[in-house]
Amino acid sequence: MFDFRPILFVVGLLLCGLAVAMILPAIVDAAVGHPDWQVFFSAAAVTLFVGVSLVLVTRGANRTIGVRQAFMLTTVAWITVAAFAALPFAFAALDLSYADAFYEAMSGITTTGGTVIVGLDAAPPGILLWRALLQWLGGIGIIVLAVAVLPVLRVGGMQVFRTEGRDTTEKVLPRAALIAASVWAIYVALTFACTVAYWAGGMGGFDAVTHAMTTVATGGFSTSDASLGKFSTPFIDGTAIVFMISGSLPFPLYIQALRGRPTALWRDRQVQTFAAALALLIVVTGLLLWQHSDYSLPAALRHAALNITSIVTTTGYTTHPYDTWGAFAATIFFVAIFIGGCTGSTTGGLKIFRFQVLYAAATTQLWRMLHPHGVFLPYFNRRPVGDDVITSVMSFFFLYILAFAALAAGLATLGLDFVTAVSSAASAIANVGPGIGPVVGPAGTFAPLPDAAKWLLSAGMLLGRLELFTVMILLAPSFWRH
Amino acid sequence: MFDFRPILFVVGLLLCGLAVAMILPAIVDAAVGHPDWQVFFSAAAVTLFVGVSLVLVTRGANRTIGVRQAFMLTTVAWITVAAFAALPFAFAALDLSYADAFYEAMSGITTTGGTVIVGLDAAPPGILLWRALLQWLGGIGIIVLAVAVLPVLRVGGMQVFRTEGRDTTEKVLPRAALIAASVWAIYVALTFACTVAYWAGGMGGFDAVTHAMTTVATGGFSTSDASLGKFSTPFIDGTAIVFMISGSLPFPLYIQALRGRPTALWRDRQVQTFAAALALLIVVTGLLLWQHSDYSLPAALRHAALNITSIVTTTGYTTHPYDTWGAFAATIFFVAIFIGGCTGSTTGGLKIFRFQVLYAAATTQLWRMLHPHGVFLPYFNRRPVGDDVITSVMSFFFLYILAFAALAAGLATLGLDFVTAVSSAASAIANVGPGIGPVVGPAGTFAPLPDAAKWLLSAGMLLGRLELFTVMILLAPSFWRH
Repeated sequence: MFDFRPILFVVGLLLCGLAVAMILPAIVDAAVGHPDWQVFFSAAAVTLFVGVSLVLVTRGANRTIGVRQAFMLTTVAWITVAAFAALPFAFAALDLSYADAFYEAMSGITTTGGTVIVGLDAAPPGILLWRALLQWLGGIGIIVLAVAVLPVLRVGGMQVFRTEGRDTTEKVLPRAALIAASVWAIYVALTFACTVAYWAGGMGGFDAVTHAMTTVATGGFSTSDASLGKFSTPFIDGTAIVFMISGSLPFPLYIQALRGRPTALWRDRQVQTFAAALALLIVVTGLLLWQHSDYSLPAALRHAALNITSIVTTTGYTTHPYDTWGAFAATIFFVAIFIGGCTGSTTGGLKIFRFQVLYAAATTQLWRMLHPHGVFLPYFNRRPVGDDVITSVMSFFFLYILAFAALAAGLATLGLDFVTAVSSAASAIANVGPGIGPVVGPAGTFAPLPDAAKWLLSAGMLLGRLELFTVMILLAPSFWRH
Repeated sequence: MFDFRPILFVVGLLLCGLAVAMILPAIVDAAVGHPDWQVFFSAAAVTLFVGVSLVLVTRGANRTIGVRQAFMLTTVAWITVAAFAALPFAFAALDLSYADAFYEAMSGITTTGGTVIVGLDAAPPGILLWRALLQWLGGIGIIVLAVAVLPVLRVGGMQVFRTEGRDTTEKVLPRAALIAASVWAIYVALTFACTVAYWAGGMGGFDAVTHAMTTVATGGFSTSDASLGKFSTPFIDGTAIVFMISGSLPFPLYIQALRGRPTALWRDRQVQTFAAALALLIVVTGLLLWQHSDYSLPAALRHAALNITSIVTTTGYTTHPYDTWGAFAATIFFVAIFIGGCTGSTTGGLKIFRFQVLYAAATTQLWRMLHPHGVFLPYFNRRPVGDDVITSVMSFFFLYILAFAALAAGLATLGLDFVTAVSSAASAIANVGPGIGPVVGPAGTFAPLPDAAKWLLSAGMLLGRLELFTVMILLAPSFWRH
């Protein structure tokens, strides 16, 4: 069997970081005199104890990480962090089961945004800050994973983003640290700018900070049961749209832009396609809403823009029960759940680059049918794409749809109705947040679901966040035979 | 531009055949004294006139057919036949619009089985026979297409079924005629056996013949608004299950079995997987139905077996409003819509062989991630599958899901609710028939939908029946640039 110690070492370090993060809500609760500060303090102590123990036990071990260890580490880290991040939810005065608490924590660190907590407007600030922090940390975590780890592991066609000369997994950890440092600065800057904009738009300081965190992370946790609807003005909506999109762009391109290629973002084919798809969906939905409601055309476009951008960027804020905008709305929003933003960002979903590769491959297929003996290469971002990337992306697409169908069927056998089952399955795997319909739709929460459904949905969020292969490979018997 | 004349010649021949087929319902209506015999007679005259004209005009032309002509012919033939087959529906005393009539005819020749006719039990026998005949002819048509034409055209990975030495399209027509002859005998024998069994089970002669035609064709048109529910007994249900399955098996294997390899069917991996998937779905659905109803376990299994087999084989008979069997049922049946039977049969859907290729490719992908420098080949039916087949099947899967999403979104903008839009889109493309929910579910019909939705669904049935690529390739600008 392979060496678990480097895995436990990194998990230990992550838990120490998590424990430090728990101090922030403890301080905030203590400042307003809410007794929950003790919950956060105790949870921090437990988490720190486990984290430090793991680091101490494994500190002498070899630090190099092989391919299989990297897969194992990614999944184990995400599950362990969720398990400990759930402690404050489980022990606070919220009356949540551990299934609830784990769901909420997983929804946080996967930047999904589905919630089981009802009564957010009256919740203590510690819990609200903790939810925002989890999404914010989950957001930076996934960017580092997508930029530094997944391309090396060839997950779901991500090898197309591999940097030359970084072929081996031995360099994964140092490289992750390097990328984290440069991405971190951009991430903090975006969050700061978003906070200022929300504050300038009339939000209180606490709401501005927490919403900025969950906006840039495309997470979608809010401090109100009405989500962003409580704060909605044209300026706030505009701010949210700008920063949800900024969190959906490839972060490596921000670095390139700062390093003297200011047009890196606009010249990228993935960004262009993302912008075009988003604009098209907003216009179609806006026009349909205008036709089916009393809104003026500008108002209809604004509401469509906020809610469609929220779903396509996999954030999950809502300002309206959009699934009741007319018969058309539920289907449009359901399809939008699957799309996702750009790779190398905080978004979930299938992601634009995969649609581009799949479209290029399908077009090439038509050419080959017309000219059986011709040679045709699919292109992505002006470069030919190898067969390994094509089959990798296509396998990803197949497993994605399969996982969705299996999760939906599983939820159905637990008693969830059709609309709730299929939309919450799609929303969990795409890390969006809300589903469709009266239960889990934009006006509902996941609280009424049975505990078993929450565990299934937690698994779905993890699968989607770690791009399926990373988790599924651990279930293959061949992974363990060596 | 290429030579249209061989295309028009074949279409002309098909229309002559269709006109001859129209004489049958004319005779039946005349025999019972129903005035609709004039409608069939006139429609036959018009169809024969157009058919003979096309044949005469093009009779001197070159008969060899190139790749692009073969694609064109397939799509044009299916649309033209539907357009003329719709004439009796449009002019009979049914009060149907031409959109209705075209939908019904397309649903017939694509062996889908969705209907816009309410009051089947009181309908004249000519119309009922015409519906059954269309499905029966559509069934044999699709087998010939799947066995003789699509593999040569490399549609959706079907090149895996290509016979050695049949590489060129010049031989498509002679080969199609040859295969049609041997498949025809089996098809007729199965239909005859099914008729006898239905009749022995208590159905009247007319009902037995028409249901046998739509059972073996996995079409699903019935002579009653209650579908097979009107005739349901354990014996009738069992007969339907056996012959729906017999229509879902690869017809080339029947030929092999008759030529001295009696185990050809049972030793085929596609047949084995199909049987296993069907059995699993029946047992799960039966147990859930048992749990959610007052049925005994055997009764629950029987009802699950009939209705699940009907959906998975893409027949579309119903004996119960199964989407109300409990919260679970709609999701399970929705997922079942996509599966389909074996290639080389009358079924629609994605088809088992594609799942097997996709699964093999995804597993190979996991191996490659673990061993980036290893060489791994996916297998189908104990033979390695080439990269061209893999990418072809995967492109098919992607375009299938994309077409489903686009059709569902299109139906939604026409005002169809979520459940109706997504389930009727899935059901049309998979050539199943019924959808889910109160409108288009097992207890409903497609009659209440707007005309535009019927045109969209007709396009969806055509796309699904001709395996997407065959139709989509005509929409590619490069198809026309030569």
